[in-house]
Amino acid sequence: MTSTNRIRLGMIGGGQGAFIGGVHRMAARLDDRYELIAGVFSARPDVNRASASELRIDPSRCYDDVSELIAGESGRDDGVQAVAIVTPNHLHFDAAKACLEAGLHVICEKPMTLTADEAETLAGLAQQKQRHLLLTHPYVGYPLVQQARAMVKRGDLGRLRMVNVEYVQEWLAEAPGPDNKQADWRLDPKRAGAAGCLGDIGTHAYQLSAFISGLTLDAVSADLSSMVEGRQLDDNVHAMLRYTSGAKGMLWVSQCAPGFENGLRIRVVGGRASLEWAQESPNELWFAPLNAPRQRITRRDDWLGDDINRGVRIPGGHPEGYIEAFANLYQALADQLNGAPADWLPDANTGVDGLHFISAVLRSNQADGAWATLPPPVGKERTSGDQR
Amino acid sequence: MTSTNRIRLGMIGGGQGAFIGGVHRMAARLDDRYELIAGVFSARPDVNRASASELRIDPSRCYDDVSELIAGESGRDDGVQAVAIVTPNHLHFDAAKACLEAGLHVICEKPMTLTADEAETLAGLAQQKQRHLLLTHPYVGYPLVQQARAMVKRGDLGRLRMVNVEYVQEWLAEAPGPDNKQADWRLDPKRAGAAGCLGDIGTHAYQLSAFISGLTLDAVSADLSSMVEGRQLDDNVHAMLRYTSGAKGMLWVSQCAPGFENGLRIRVVGGRASLEWAQESPNELWFAPLNAPRQRITRRDDWLGDDINRGVRIPGGHPEGYIEAFANLYQALADQLNGAPADWLPDANTGVDGLHFISAVLRSNQADGAWATLPPPVGKERTSGDQR
Amino acid sequence: MTSTNRIRLGMIGGGQGAFIGGVHRMAARLDDRYELIAGVFSARPDVNRASASELRIDPSRCYDDVSELIAGESGRDDGVQAVAIVTPNHLHFDAAKACLEAGLHVICEKPMTLTADEAETLAGLAQQKQRHLLLTHPYVGYPLVQQARAMVKRGDLGRLRMVNVEYVQEWLAEAPGPDNKQADWRLDPKRAGAAGCLGDIGTHAYQLSAFISGLTLDAVSADLSSMVEGRQLDDNVHAMLRYTSGAKGMLWVSQCAPGFENGLRIRVVGGRASLEWAQESPNELWFAPLNAPRQRITRRDDWLGDDINRGVRIPGGHPEGYIEAFANLYQALADQLNGAPADWLPDANTGVDGLHFISAVLRSNQADGAWATLPPPVGKERTSGDQR
Amino acid sequence: MTSTNRIRLGMIGGGQGAFIGGVHRMAARLDDRYELIAGVFSARPDVNRASASELRIDPSRCYDDVSELIAGESGRDDGVQAVAIVTPNHLHFDAAKACLEAGLHVICEKPMTLTADEAETLAGLAQQKQRHLLLTHPYVGYPLVQQARAMVKRGDLGRLRMVNVEYVQEWLAEAPGPDNKQADWRLDPKRAGAAGCLGDIGTHAYQLSAFISGLTLDAVSADLSSMVEGRQLDDNVHAMLRYTSGAKGMLWVSQCAPGFENGLRIRVVGGRASLEWAQESPNELWFAPLNAPRQRITRRDDWLGDDINRGVRIPGGHPEGYIEAFANLYQALADQLNGAPADWLPDANTGVDGLHFISAVLRSNQADGAWATLPPPVGKERTSGDQR
Repeated sequence: MTSTNRIRLGMIGGGQGAFIGGVHRMAARLDDRYELIAGVFSARPDVNRASASELRIDPSRCYDDVSELIAGESGRDDGVQAVAIVTPNHLHFDAAKACLEAGLHVICEKPMTLTADEAETLAGLAQQKQRHLLLTHPYVGYPLVQQARAMVKRGDLGRLRMVNVEYVQEWLAEAPGPDNKQADWRLDPKRAGAAGCLGDIGTHAYQLSAFISGLTLDAVSADLSSMVEGRQLDDNVHAMLRYTSGAKGMLWVSQCAPGFENGLRIRVVGGRASLEWAQESPNELWFAPLNAPRQRITRRDDWLGDDINRGVRIPGGHPEGYIEAFANLYQALADQLNGAPADWLPDANTGVDGLHFISAVLRSNQADGAWATLPPPVGKERTSGDQR
Repeated sequence: MTSTNRIRLGMIGGGQGAFIGGVHRMAARLDDRYELIAGVFSARPDVNRASASELRIDPSRCYDDVSELIAGESGRDDGVQAVAIVTPNHLHFDAAKACLEAGLHVICEKPMTLTADEAETLAGLAQQKQRHLLLTHPYVGYPLVQQARAMVKRGDLGRLRMVNVEYVQEWLAEAPGPDNKQADWRLDPKRAGAAGCLGDIGTHAYQLSAFISGLTLDAVSADLSSMVEGRQLDDNVHAMLRYTSGAKGMLWVSQCAPGFENGLRIRVVGGRASLEWAQESPNELWFAPLNAPRQRITRRDDWLGDDINRGVRIPGGHPEGYIEAFANLYQALADQLNGAPADWLPDANTGVDGLHFISAVLRSNQADGAWATLPPPVGKERTSGDQR
Repeated sequence: MTSTNRIRLGMIGGGQGAFIGGVHRMAARLDDRYELIAGVFSARPDVNRASASELRIDPSRCYDDVSELIAGESGRDDGVQAVAIVTPNHLHFDAAKACLEAGLHVICEKPMTLTADEAETLAGLAQQKQRHLLLTHPYVGYPLVQQARAMVKRGDLGRLRMVNVEYVQEWLAEAPGPDNKQADWRLDPKRAGAAGCLGDIGTHAYQLSAFISGLTLDAVSADLSSMVEGRQLDDNVHAMLRYTSGAKGMLWVSQCAPGFENGLRIRVVGGRASLEWAQESPNELWFAPLNAPRQRITRRDDWLGDDINRGVRIPGGHPEGYIEAFANLYQALADQLNGAPADWLPDANTGVDGLHFISAVLRSNQADGAWATLPPPVGKERTSGDQR
Repeated sequence: MTSTNRIRLGMIGGGQGAFIGGVHRMAARLDDRYELIAGVFSARPDVNRASASELRIDPSRCYDDVSELIAGESGRDDGVQAVAIVTPNHLHFDAAKACLEAGLHVICEKPMTLTADEAETLAGLAQQKQRHLLLTHPYVGYPLVQQARAMVKRGDLGRLRMVNVEYVQEWLAEAPGPDNKQADWRLDPKRAGAAGCLGDIGTHAYQLSAFISGLTLDAVSADLSSMVEGRQLDDNVHAMLRYTSGAKGMLWVSQCAPGFENGLRIRVVGGRASLEWAQESPNELWFAPLNAPRQRITRRDDWLGDDINRGVRIPGGHPEGYIEAFANLYQALADQLNGAPADWLPDANTGVDGLHFISAVLRSNQADGAWATLPPPVGKERTSGDQR
């Protein structure tokens, strides 16, 4: 419970028929730290209005486009403080740029932009304007993902050797039917960008592995496929990873694999122990020390390190899920806006790093798997000296 | 998304330091169908005020006791329509009675009352006043629990033979420390009633088994224990069950079992197949037909029967948890208050049935395990003819 | 590897079409400590001869009945030293009695006899003749079952509170077809005795729980059913258990439960920790301490206590199964015959105890679940002082 | 049960202190189709004699070396028919060559030889002499591995898209102690060859994936590491795979990964369904069709296709393990020697293919991950037309 005022939130995208916008709204609502008061919910005026009405938005604060929203809200004392951008990928950049320039905090879906240049522009702008950009990689909001990261950091695994991450789905295993709005834009290079499942979920897998391992990726060797006939973008990604520390990794990302629902899963192996976490069983984390029994760590308040986000709302044994993980991002951003730093939150630099990753994978694939290097994330020197 | 007005909600209990009140608030908030606007959050005035302030409740609607709340809210056009009662057990009855008499809908924690007589009074009152009483057995809010029930009902299992239900926890495995507010009242016969873990979680186990199986319990043979020294109430319950149809069951409930967090789990066995569901992995339901491979049914919109509550908010593979299940009760109640029946919701009759169960178990235990019968739930004839 | 001579083994039963005889032969062969050289494989002469031929038994040592076998083998220097009795239940007693009287060691299938009196006769005879009677409860041959027992014994669980054991199968969920030799005799009171699944697999469940827990059962309250129409014997058993120490237990045994293959499973709960083991995943043992992560103990040589049978043939991660567990009994008997005691082996006293258990369950069931007591196993005083 | 004569078996290697020789002996013994009657169990005469004595081998048939064994056994009517070679890798070739030349059948540990040339020599010799060479890749002996292969073959998965195989262990995660005989030769390039874990277990992983998928590997891109300081050979292998059909794969092999015991595991993904099997739970096979519940297929006689080896000895629910899988190879070889073809058995051509795989991985690694092609296995044209 908290007595601070709710943060005034606007939304771009997320109208009727959309998916992720509703998740953002539930996440914002769960802990009662936000109130949604304005938005541009759809480019189609009728859908925009109808959506605003359903959401009980004051009609005067349902705007036709982003510039109107900024103009309208800037003039008021009770104007929005933050804007959630939940449109298809190709619209992220312009919207985020305009909001940051107007001095608004931004919550942005991933991938942050279509190109690394655009990403760097946003990162620079956020820095210059001293505004937060929260990039919604929700999986790092799971308490046990944060616990995994804390255990790596404090050395429970010894020096890291291997990272094995995969994100495998079945939902695009066949050519989608004609009315599949979600599939539609994701399979269209104009709206999704040059990366298919690589951009859509590969960035999640990469970001999760970087988040937990703390390792800096030096180079990647990749092999992309479009398994479903007629598909223009990749629907399967195989990659090998080399970290600056000497650790090695593998990454498998697919959206055409029958039998997999939302199979994000990571194993981190060090010299003394390994960890395993799978998104579909998010309330358990497996810790396997060398020559000792494997342990099942659950989401219990007294087991989690002090540096874990206080997003544990209910006792161990009472499952929390995806919405709660997502809400943990919103909650931590609210803390941040109230002065409590949450440096683990994915931000604009995370977005830049994700675009560099996409770019390196595409370059390697075009070069028949030759190793493609990428620059270190901002704030990290490229070094082979990671001594964990 | 929905455009109906939010239901105006009051709360009794749930102040600072409480647990379940916060869960009710998250559940009410998740789908944006309620607004909490009034309450009596604590019997201690300072805690009451501080809690209301944290919850951003208008101070004029933070009341000293239930009668004041009723008086204050009855006089206003925008007064509360429903009240959530989240106090310790012994306070449920008076509060629920007063609210129902005032024409308010009631959301009540379980066990509904301390005695079956009290329960029947409330059930009668709800009927007479034509008000809803939602009894918060949240586990039936899980979509796959509803799916299990639908599969039993449509005959996928054949005629039922055995039910095996257990609810096992470790949190009272030792005498609790001095400041454990949650444990405190639960171990005190004056506040918890004559049943210990039997009342606290045994009612959940019984209700879940009745909900899924649809069977009518005829008699129970029970053996209760207080395993922890000095404990006045039961902390372990073993029971055998006989249903009117000829089916048999077993029930194990414990709060003193190390290694179990929130181990609610049920297996239902019919002549053609069996089902298994465990609360700690709530997004999967195991269906095992005779002489055929066991199947893992997940929470996917296209797999769930039409009679499942539409509480599936996100795609399969994206875990939902306890809060979502709880929210499904609130959501269905909101539907009901708006005219859409949700006859699966636990109500006052469910509460009466639960008290009869408690009473029969206690009677059998006092008679060294002799079979104790119980009356059929309201709306069910006692019959051995259940033909599924 | 060992250089001792092979033990000369005879067999009664186990001819063509039989099941368990073949398992005994594999178990005897696996570690090369036995040679099968004589037998009465079937009451039907043609089957007997054909079976012996397939097994490469010298025709002169294929006998028509037990007395011939004893007569024939007693007269030779290289006569059998031990006899495995693998017939239907009703034939165990006479064969075992004759063999013991002739000074042979006996390996006997369970249940050892049809009545407790017969069992006591065999136990007395074994003692008087100083011969071993190995009762083949193979599940205690699994190394992790022995590890579980050792952990209980050394106090890892604290004082025991609850035991929950079940053995559930589906194979008799329907009336069997006309040619089902295995089902045939098991459903016939004349050959199986007064207990159906209770005798066939209930004895395994009871013996496993006694073996691991070390507790002495004081009384049982039982409810038996014949779920399949026309069945004369029980096919489902529910029971509550009271141990002399004050610990409590539950037991579920069934052969009419679709979806269960060979579901023997036990949970033992103490004040400090609990254990879980399931026969279908026999290479892992779950140890769950109070307020600490659950641990997965595997069948690794360096993890198992010194008092575990040295039956671990291959490294952890290389699964061992039912045949190896069975072979561990044979191996330990061979050790015993060579002078190395294996006091954990199920013997004639175990058989007596099993018959007392069957008898108590049947008595309780006939008395509508009234608690029926049973005498303590030989070598155990009945006491409520088990101080583990 | 079978009445054919036992096959007369010799053994090279497998003396006291060895590991895999004992497994071969148990596997040969389990189904009573072999008798071990001769051998060279160690290069050290004292160990050789002592081992033979423990194994009850006639001292006159315990030979000093392979040529003596061949000379001694060739002269006898009852001489060995087959020889099992269970020495360290570098000794396989000479022994196998000599035995084949002498007209003996050979059972050989993997990797078959140190080089592809040697492998081809053996394959040619086996063909020329019309003798069987069984290469002991035991994992394909598991009935559910054979079931997986049959399901792929009959099209249950649709056209294959991806193969993901891994074999991960922890046992060499640290530099081994001074007396570790098993580790010793495996870490020594002179005795193990140029491949470390790649040769020791990578060949198993590759062979398993080829066996189940039926795909022809076209090229590999690999990244090898020696994670443990001072190690001369690889202890971690990452590789991407390209099949001639257009399918893609990933392979992870490691012996320095804490928390993994014998983690061989494969997932095969087709356009209509996927399969998963893990060696540590060998009695279940997961079949996951597109948009339908995942199914758990168990080792039940009535579920397995007709083309599965008849190695199922006991009913479903009774676990079989590694020794039984190993024994299935021996059993099928015995069938083969008696005229019943078992074309699924790994043979000399499998060995050649394994050496080509090793060679391609090493070449790719030396070329910084450039794709290295390999010739198709004997009997397979290289084609992109695999139409399953």
